[in-house]
Amino acid sequence: MAATPADVVEYPVSYVFVVDMPRIRASEIKVQIENDNVLVVSGERKREKEEGAKYLSMERRTGKFLRRFALPENANVETVTAACQDGVLRVAVEKVRPPEPKTKTIKVKAR
Amino acid sequence: MAATPADVVEYPVSYVFVVDMPRIRASEIKVQIENDNVLVVSGERKREKEEGAKYLSMERRTGKFLRRFALPENANVETVTAACQDGVLRVAVEKVRPPEPKTKTIKVKAR
Repeated sequence: MAATPADVVEYPVSYVFVVDMPRIRASEIKVQIENDNVLVVSGERKREKEEGAKYLSMERRTGKFLRRFALPENANVETVTAACQDGVLRVAVEKVRPPEPKTKTIKVKAR
Repeated sequence: MAATPADVVEYPVSYVFVVDMPRIRASEIKVQIENDNVLVVSGERKREKEEGAKYLSMERRTGKFLRRFALPENANVETVTAACQDGVLRVAVEKVRPPEPKTKTIKVKAR
């Protein structure tokens, strides 16, 4: 299984899931929401196969990976965006906005 | 110390050192040759500091890193190239070409 360390960061209006994914292209990553409350990130990291190549040392891990993140209750699963840059995937989930406080103004009568 | 797993691959005409470096830009990596026989790759992986950010989980490793690779005897340290893409650094070192075999043709005389 490939190593996919992740950070989870809370911002005032969103949650961001940051996953290290060296050498994986955006097209090879699958980002899904399960049952409206779990974020699932999966894919496969393959070793480059090249003719005439002989491995003298092999530390980089390959294989399929799958990470699940329980989403907080106030996550808005309708507003999920994902972007990959420099081998790092960032999935942003906005928070549901609390309902606007209803304000009713009562006119003060002069007696 | 940040995790920097590496593969070393031998090709017919070169050696390639492949190092996983998620979220590191090319400008932040230092590649050096020490004493004509050691390849040194170093740099620092920093955590993004953003206002209002609160870490709920922190698995991605940060900090300085340094990797040394002993170069084989036939490595040509005058022909080293390094490139970074998708969080992966590739340093290629050509092999010194063996001297061309000297061939001397002796004319066969007809008697």
